[in-house]
Amino acid sequence: MTSMPETPLLDQVDFPSDLRKLDDRDMPQLARELRDEMIDAVSRTGGHLGAGLGVVELTIAIHKVFNTPDDRLIFDVGHQCYPHKILTGRRDRIRTLRQEGGLSGFTRRAESEYDPFGAAHSSTSISAGLGMAVATDLAKTNRKVIAVIGDGAMSAGMAYEALNNAGALDARLIVILNDNDMSIAPPTGAMSAYLARLASGRSYMGFREFGKKLTAYLGKRVDRAITRAVEHARGYVTGGTMFEELGFYHIGPIDGHSFDHLLPVLRNVRDNQQGPVLIHVVTQKGKGYAPAEAAADKYHGVNKFDVITGAQAKVKPNAPSYTSVFAESLAQEAAFDEKIVGITAAMPNGTGLDKLADLFPSRCFDVGIAEQHAVTFAAGLAAEGFKPFAALYSTFLQRAYDQVVHDVAIQGLPVRFPIDRAGFVGADGPTHAGSFDTTFLATLPGFVVMAAADEAELKHMVRTAAAYDAGPISFRYPRGEGIGIEMPERGQILEIGKGRIVKQGSKVALLSFGTRLADSLLAAEDLDAAGLSTTVADARFAKPLDHDLIRQLASHHEVLITIEEGSIGGFGSHVMQFLAMEGLLDNGLKIRTLAMPDIWVEQAKPEAMNARAGLDRAGIVSTVFKALGRSRIVGAAG
Amino acid sequence: MTSMPETPLLDQVDFPSDLRKLDDRDMPQLARELRDEMIDAVSRTGGHLGAGLGVVELTIAIHKVFNTPDDRLIFDVGHQCYPHKILTGRRDRIRTLRQEGGLSGFTRRAESEYDPFGAAHSSTSISAGLGMAVATDLAKTNRKVIAVIGDGAMSAGMAYEALNNAGALDARLIVILNDNDMSIAPPTGAMSAYLARLASGRSYMGFREFGKKLTAYLGKRVDRAITRAVEHARGYVTGGTMFEELGFYHIGPIDGHSFDHLLPVLRNVRDNQQGPVLIHVVTQKGKGYAPAEAAADKYHGVNKFDVITGAQAKVKPNAPSYTSVFAESLAQEAAFDEKIVGITAAMPNGTGLDKLADLFPSRCFDVGIAEQHAVTFAAGLAAEGFKPFAALYSTFLQRAYDQVVHDVAIQGLPVRFPIDRAGFVGADGPTHAGSFDTTFLATLPGFVVMAAADEAELKHMVRTAAAYDAGPISFRYPRGEGIGIEMPERGQILEIGKGRIVKQGSKVALLSFGTRLADSLLAAEDLDAAGLSTTVADARFAKPLDHDLIRQLASHHEVLITIEEGSIGGFGSHVMQFLAMEGLLDNGLKIRTLAMPDIWVEQAKPEAMNARAGLDRAGIVSTVFKALGRSRIVGAAG
Repeated sequence: MTSMPETPLLDQVDFPSDLRKLDDRDMPQLARELRDEMIDAVSRTGGHLGAGLGVVELTIAIHKVFNTPDDRLIFDVGHQCYPHKILTGRRDRIRTLRQEGGLSGFTRRAESEYDPFGAAHSSTSISAGLGMAVATDLAKTNRKVIAVIGDGAMSAGMAYEALNNAGALDARLIVILNDNDMSIAPPTGAMSAYLARLASGRSYMGFREFGKKLTAYLGKRVDRAITRAVEHARGYVTGGTMFEELGFYHIGPIDGHSFDHLLPVLRNVRDNQQGPVLIHVVTQKGKGYAPAEAAADKYHGVNKFDVITGAQAKVKPNAPSYTSVFAESLAQEAAFDEKIVGITAAMPNGTGLDKLADLFPSRCFDVGIAEQHAVTFAAGLAAEGFKPFAALYSTFLQRAYDQVVHDVAIQGLPVRFPIDRAGFVGADGPTHAGSFDTTFLATLPGFVVMAAADEAELKHMVRTAAAYDAGPISFRYPRGEGIGIEMPERGQILEIGKGRIVKQGSKVALLSFGTRLADSLLAAEDLDAAGLSTTVADARFAKPLDHDLIRQLASHHEVLITIEEGSIGGFGSHVMQFLAMEGLLDNGLKIRTLAMPDIWVEQAKPEAMNARAGLDRAGIVSTVFKALGRSRIVGAAG
Repeated sequence: MTSMPETPLLDQVDFPSDLRKLDDRDMPQLARELRDEMIDAVSRTGGHLGAGLGVVELTIAIHKVFNTPDDRLIFDVGHQCYPHKILTGRRDRIRTLRQEGGLSGFTRRAESEYDPFGAAHSSTSISAGLGMAVATDLAKTNRKVIAVIGDGAMSAGMAYEALNNAGALDARLIVILNDNDMSIAPPTGAMSAYLARLASGRSYMGFREFGKKLTAYLGKRVDRAITRAVEHARGYVTGGTMFEELGFYHIGPIDGHSFDHLLPVLRNVRDNQQGPVLIHVVTQKGKGYAPAEAAADKYHGVNKFDVITGAQAKVKPNAPSYTSVFAESLAQEAAFDEKIVGITAAMPNGTGLDKLADLFPSRCFDVGIAEQHAVTFAAGLAAEGFKPFAALYSTFLQRAYDQVVHDVAIQGLPVRFPIDRAGFVGADGPTHAGSFDTTFLATLPGFVVMAAADEAELKHMVRTAAAYDAGPISFRYPRGEGIGIEMPERGQILEIGKGRIVKQGSKVALLSFGTRLADSLLAAEDLDAAGLSTTVADARFAKPLDHDLIRQLASHHEVLITIEEGSIGGFGSHVMQFLAMEGLLDNGLKIRTLAMPDIWVEQAKPEAMNARAGLDRAGIVSTVFKALGRSRIVGAAG
């Protein structure tokens, strides 16, 4: 561990009010210290580094110029909020970032009055800011509202919806477009290319500048007639930027690392704003920390690292990650079937689709942060006989729910949904938990909904999804490593709607959906040892349910426990609905459905989260004992 | 009934291939006949009229120029597809539109190969079309893909996401922007204003045209230097339209009712397309039918009507509609509490928010077809202490699911969600059914989820939602009329999480969530008559559940039936989960959960849909008898 950085100026700043007492000339020094402090903190905790480094000057400048927290500052996504947290009364806890009981890795209303709107998913800030700007008009409070949004986040439809509405309402909202030419991966999309053109200065110039240019070029030959001609023609030329067309006053691009640019522009906007303003600020992700600047991903998300060398701590994995198993299995199947294509919404690395893109570049599509479009685009491909895998995290699939329902499910189109980060996700906390996918998918008629119990099962499910062409199909798998099970050369095609008995017993039945199978097997050991002969089954499918299997479990056991790392309304509910309607609950079967608890579970280690939810070995054993009216908790459970 | 129109030319056209044999000069006559035919058909069935009338020429021109169905034609939303259906082999069934067993009111893959992608929700066509355009590239089939999208639909984020991606992929997609300055209501948003400026011809002109203008104005004074200056400056000026900035070749605006404009432009695009093309076509909604042209809503959706006068059949209501009860109750509460604001996504009339807008124009916001933004905008208002009612149809709320989860629920912000069109919706069919809201909302921690049993209950729930400030709250109500119950002067504030016993019995318990209460009471009459003393309860809340009530019903009855007009995973699942975890199912309670069936239910009368789903009086009675092992279906049930 290196020693803590020296930060004499930053030490005087507990809150933005302290910052406002300092001289403008001190700001570069403060920025250096803030950067050092942040690098040190993240080197100890891991977390999002590059984004925060890019907005050190911008964050200081906003707090210096605006009267936060009365003026509202909203950071989009929140990856970039660590410098903001340090400046707003949370420096003493900055080394608890993303730890259990510590600071959130994102902005959070519950954490600070300086976080007026929480974030974590992309592209929400303009909408939220517009709501606040309208509120300040209605309440006549005259506060300023500032939304800071990255260029990557501008590819999402809701950012456009909000701009469109802001322009129409003529609300006094300030949007700061933080253009670092990066979201997590390099950006895609025409908007991104457009912003790059603007930022390069080659194409950004208002009509007034064009007139000047024309005049300068013509030199002495210019005369009043030409000037008048230009003025005359002005009305016939769009001339403005896209943001101007949408009703924003558009400033920039300006240098986001220069206080000489930032402070006067922000003061000018603060003092003279009429309607919506967009300030286009160009920054460099990872700025000021050489290892980050040099890295392809700009140290977007890092483990603990050595500040001097930038070397990140490597945790030696015990088994391949689920993501990598998915990535390799899909690439393997894609080599067999040229109809397979992949779609990612700006997460080629996170989803593992970069593997497919490397092997078959023409068959992998990064559509930008645009989950809605991703899914309907996939539906279009499926309608033409392709086999699209729309790979999204569980939490981000929420953003495409209507497209899943309306464009995929109602039409019965065979879009494949690999669902990564299903279940608890650990340090990212409740905004990223993959809780609801089974509930919101399994309720859709005709959907096939699978969950992988281990990494070999995941491989089978990739192949099963590739082979299944009768309608939509999904398979969920968690963040992190597999259990180290032996892997087959190639996945098998699973029979749709068939689970499997993993261990046969006679008194207690544990029916697992997904990766709680391992803990179910451990629980079964304890239960067997306690004289309770236990069957363990892997459901594989929440839809269609394996009716024969469930009937058998219900008929031949005294207790039936369903287990899933998902929210209420999912697998367990479908099992109970079937049992109830079949009359299989009429005879006193002791059924219990274990699911994620009905609270927003705060960041912690996933194992701790599962334990607290009662979804681990001990929790399963305890549930069985309670169902049987036995109070003794088996000793071997720990 | 008027006699059928005379249509000698149209009679020769069963399919587009017939149309292609006709001469260009016959097209205006064909358009007249097609318009007459469509007016006659809709006068008999009711349905969407204005949108189809506006695209008669456009539809003919597309089928004349392009090789449908091999070339793919996708209509956005599908309100405008009736002329298309008439021209594509479905004329013989056009008078069955929206009837049970008849043609769908929207495009539908299952209905015709000329409908390559179904629609009904807005703004999906560019995404789907892009998927198809990419597919044609990958498969080297060289077919054309045409997406026809209205200007109103351009306010939705997913349209922008798709444009952004299409520009980046440089795909050979043709987007026809059908600009009629109307979606359902007059449009809102800056994009709409921008399109109006383009269409007015005042601001649309590419740089080339600007150069010409300049030259013309200067007349003889123009010389090479000026021309060179213009060329030089070109690189520094954005100059293009927003669509050009996004990578589209942009043509138009052109007159969408003139074959002289449409045919050459479409042929030119067909024969010379390189990358993505956007053709901006200006049309008039309701064109060619005087009563529609004169109506404010351009006869968007109509009942059966008299062709001569345009007078629509009025069905005398027995009771006020749920929508109007909501509208009046909200306006009433808004008069008491100035913090109440309303938000609609382009449906001021459909949701009844126009009532609020009339009384308090500054407190009602139509954000355009932009559900995602609507919800997060509401969250921003709630964060500032306002009481936003984000009024959406159940089916459209799906489009804002991530915003509901991430921006509202996780933050515990008190956004109110009035959910109209919950349950079966009749003629609009499965794309508009409000099936899933209880399932996808009640699974969210901290959400309060209500359903109104009748219109008086709805009034109570509006007031309850206004008074409840501790977190998100929703209340669902169906399409159509109330039951005619006596209405209170003002709603009461309901106790959160408390249901009510409506009728006390002893053997059978019917626990209804929402408007199935009326049928439950009728079923109870039959059951009582059959000697089965029946309790009927109105749950009011799916979340939080009324544990006392449920415990009491479970403990003191032999049979417990839950009833809801919603999908699996909703109210009934929550009830069962509670009972299971409490051990209340261990003693042989006969529980059954009645919900919407696990199929996509086709258009029909809502009563017929509920009957088929077993959610009506007879279905409830039958379920109870089956649970009790009694085969006799009670005679009085019919």
